[in-house]
Amino acid sequence: MSNQKVYNVAVVGATGAVGEQIIKLLETRNFPIQQIKFLSSARSAGKKLTFKGQEYVIEEATPDSFNDVHIALFSAGGDVSKALAPEAAKRGAVCIDNTSAFRMDPNTPLVVPEVNPEKIKEHNGIIANPNCSTIQMVAALKPLHDRYSIKRVIVSTYQAVSGAGARAIQETLRQTRAVLDEQEVQPDVLPVGGLPVKHQIAFNAIPQIDKFTDNGYTFEEMKMTNETKKIMGDESIEVSATCVRIPVIYGHSESVYVEFNEQFDIDEVKALLAEAPGVTLVDDPANQQYPLATDAAGKPDVFVGRIRRDITSEKGLNMWIVSDNLLKGAAWNAVQIAEYIVKG
Amino acid sequence: MSNQKVYNVAVVGATGAVGEQIIKLLETRNFPIQQIKFLSSARSAGKKLTFKGQEYVIEEATPDSFNDVHIALFSAGGDVSKALAPEAAKRGAVCIDNTSAFRMDPNTPLVVPEVNPEKIKEHNGIIANPNCSTIQMVAALKPLHDRYSIKRVIVSTYQAVSGAGARAIQETLRQTRAVLDEQEVQPDVLPVGGLPVKHQIAFNAIPQIDKFTDNGYTFEEMKMTNETKKIMGDESIEVSATCVRIPVIYGHSESVYVEFNEQFDIDEVKALLAEAPGVTLVDDPANQQYPLATDAAGKPDVFVGRIRRDITSEKGLNMWIVSDNLLKGAAWNAVQIAEYIVKG
Repeated sequence: MSNQKVYNVAVVGATGAVGEQIIKLLETRNFPIQQIKFLSSARSAGKKLTFKGQEYVIEEATPDSFNDVHIALFSAGGDVSKALAPEAAKRGAVCIDNTSAFRMDPNTPLVVPEVNPEKIKEHNGIIANPNCSTIQMVAALKPLHDRYSIKRVIVSTYQAVSGAGARAIQETLRQTRAVLDEQEVQPDVLPVGGLPVKHQIAFNAIPQIDKFTDNGYTFEEMKMTNETKKIMGDESIEVSATCVRIPVIYGHSESVYVEFNEQFDIDEVKALLAEAPGVTLVDDPANQQYPLATDAAGKPDVFVGRIRRDITSEKGLNMWIVSDNLLKGAAWNAVQIAEYIVKG
Repeated sequence: MSNQKVYNVAVVGATGAVGEQIIKLLETRNFPIQQIKFLSSARSAGKKLTFKGQEYVIEEATPDSFNDVHIALFSAGGDVSKALAPEAAKRGAVCIDNTSAFRMDPNTPLVVPEVNPEKIKEHNGIIANPNCSTIQMVAALKPLHDRYSIKRVIVSTYQAVSGAGARAIQETLRQTRAVLDEQEVQPDVLPVGGLPVKHQIAFNAIPQIDKFTDNGYTFEEMKMTNETKKIMGDESIEVSATCVRIPVIYGHSESVYVEFNEQFDIDEVKALLAEAPGVTLVDDPANQQYPLATDAAGKPDVFVGRIRRDITSEKGLNMWIVSDNLLKGAAWNAVQIAEYIVKG
């Protein structure tokens, strides 16, 4: 008999692109589960899924769904989290929330375990999982900031459609086939589900993810600015992002320019990244090796390459950061946090 | 009877992706042609094509092909230009060369007609057409540099596969269908024709265009640096580029950060771009309007949007620049130069 403590776990948004990955990870990581329940909006309730060989019926999430739940993983959209995470917390659950609902709430830790694991213990019932494009960037920036102090970052992203959910994946595949077959393309979901104008994603690059804010940046772009400061625990780091959706299914790529406050050594940068937890260096231009979305898909790590001294500023560095947006960018980061909670 | 002067024209590389567009433009622009000949490598010689309703046989290009030719448009690769453009020039032709063979030669003007048309007259038989990713960027930068003086540019590109030629287009379509049909993908051309390692382009982003140089940048990236200085006639402008191939067929997109030497006014920036020759402003975030590769394809203009003040530096500006890489980025820029020659 094992003495390991076991937990009652709830997965909210079990049928979504992220929810599916969370469930897979709980299975493959052999998470210490006593009871598990799968919750969703009314729309998906009643659907069935299999977990560790056993069939479960997905239930509609209500406040009382969280009675006796120890750990609740939320990825059913910001409105669901706003309504139910506080209810779950009130009932004693620790919520790991994959939406943007509580990320900037000063009472909610925003955690990337490789960067600020110490914040996990400061929770008040809710721990926020950062935005996918932020997580992979800060995992690579952290060891460099600790060593050279980052002044600012200019980043352009190449983001996969799976970041916009299962319907965006389906739309991309459907549109792509239509273009190949010389059929008319009917945009339906992207760039932003809730907005009226739709653009073709097949064989295109759409410079809009989320709505626009007043300063001309999108909310996605400002998330990279604000969440980076909070996760790194340093309000002085400035981030300017341009977030772009491209026809890739899994894996966000980022072209990142970093300006340090100090002089840096390029070989030490590579050594720091090679040793960084959760980071894999793929940086061999002579052999045309650099991170690629297709290689990163399905893997938990953050991949970094194209590391080079910037030719326009002596304290500038460029690199190419790639990670599976559904794994490290979402499900894996959330399950990592859950594992930290279990470890105590 | 017209008194308009007419010209003997040669198109070298008539069967390539750019050559095809040059031929279309000579037709639709009603270029004043006396005689036209279509030349190529030995491999494509003997093929036929139709120009203004008449059939032509493509001939193998040799030095004597250029006897009596007034204007020769080269897009058959650097080696062909290196071997034959000087021969054509020696025989009195003005060569407009779309390859990188002579771009940085101090005796060869490098021209974007909207930026430095005055250089056309300084030619010694050869005028170089810049790299596609550079042309569209400098067309947008020129009016801003004249007004505020550009200190430096940090650019990340989202480049279409047609920039790598007809075989890269075919490969992209073939690979994409294979992925949709869950077949194995066989990379064959990209990222760089002459290099041994191949990567999948379908549903991917490849951060390599052309070979690597010693400083960790690729030749494509350094072209953006060096050609920008030459075209703008200002060695003080610094450019750091990250060039990335994405699964788009026609139209390069660029995420461009510009740092000025002076304070700037964002409304004046927009006004300058709106008035700039060859530039079309598409900048209405409230209505989700910004340049898109799929909208730019087939059009001669450079499209600019997502114009906003950078949040990390008071003299910084961000924008999104899109143009058809085969048109303004290649064929149209070359035919424009030819039209300037004709106008005298």
